Amino acid sequence: MEPRRRPYDLDRLTDVAFAVFAERGFDGASMDDVARAAGISKAAIYHHVASKEALLERGLGRALEALFAILDDPAASTGEPERRLRYIVRRVAALALDVLPELTVLVRVRGNSTVERDARARRQEFDRRVAVSMREAQAAGACDPELDASLVVRLIFGMCNSVVEWYRPGGVLTSATIVDTVERIVFDGTAGR
Amino acid sequence: MEPRRRPYDLDRLTDVAFAVFAERGFDGASMDDVARAAGISKAAIYHHVASKEALLERGLGRALEALFAILDDPAASTGEPERRLRYIVRRVAALALDVLPELTVLVRVRGNSTVERDARARRQEFDRRVAVSMREAQAAGACDPELDASLVVRLIFGMCNSVVEWYRPGGVLTSATIVDTVERIVFDGTAGR
Repeated sequence: MEPRRRPYDLDRLTDVAFAVFAERGFDGASMDDVARAAGISKAAIYHHVASKEALLERGLGRALEALFAILDDPAASTGEPERRLRYIVRRVAALALDVLPELTVLVRVRGNSTVERDARARRQEFDRRVAVSMREAQAAGACDPELDASLVVRLIFGMCNSVVEWYRPGGVLTSATIVDTVERIVFDGTAGR
Repeated sequence: MEPRRRPYDLDRLTDVAFAVFAERGFDGASMDDVARAAGISKAAIYHHVASKEALLERGLGRALEALFAILDDPAASTGEPERRLRYIVRRVAALALDVLPELTVLVRVRGNSTVERDARARRQEFDRRVAVSMREAQAAGACDPELDASLVVRLIFGMCNSVVEWYRPGGVLTSATIVDTVERIVFDGTAGR
């Protein structure tokens, strides 16, 4: 049987669009760019989706759902505060590598439209919930109570998200090494144990 | 005396251009956008500079020179390895807050032109030199020798550079708090001391 190219569905189109958005920036990318990257006509794209904004909403929704799913996991919500927080940090670091283009775009969203403002608000809500988890770890004596939990959470996610700048799947650095190193830095720092 | 608007020079124009580039992405920003933000005509801009690319080169050059100047400081090159590395990390964190738009653009440069490729190469050279410093701290027993120095350096700078996503000068978080917190996480982690 000859290999056949699977026809585009909205999911695959979102993949292609986010590769383009991550590369050129959402504002800098046009539907023409998306059509070119997908190898189909702009009319064919508009058969699937009403606007560039709708593609943005869909892809950001993926990243946000994946983030919030972490918090719903029992390992993130039950047990010792430090273990929960470690679990969340590891999962966020791993997620950043999994949904790299979506995360790249999410991180850079400026709030220029309702879709962008909603995405920013949900991301801030995620940060707030993780900061609560960090404060529980502080109260339990597992993290230094003098640290500003909101700031630390921002910095941690900044570190996790920075992989979008240099991580290439299939490269020398594995996801496992990156996740372990992030956890190590966040909880123990680089000092010898 | 009436306050008078200082006429544009290339430095101020670079400031305005980088605010625009940081906001819209370099590829997404046009010279029309820069002219609008500067409140002058495009012709007036071309009186100062030949191209958008030339503005990019100038602004990236600023950020890179400021980064390399850190390494030339005696505090970064003499004395105990751990003290040197701490100094470098603190200075990079502070620098990120000082030249926010330039750094935002530098971090996102994709290598689409000679200017971008040169900037990436110099940034990688900077990372390599800091990784050498980290390896010296590992050899001296101040940092865990099992950590991959190049990866750690990337993650540290990822954390420092992530401030471009949320830091607003004059906000609640001071530069001093951010720099202290970055140093704390990098060397000691969040665990109670």
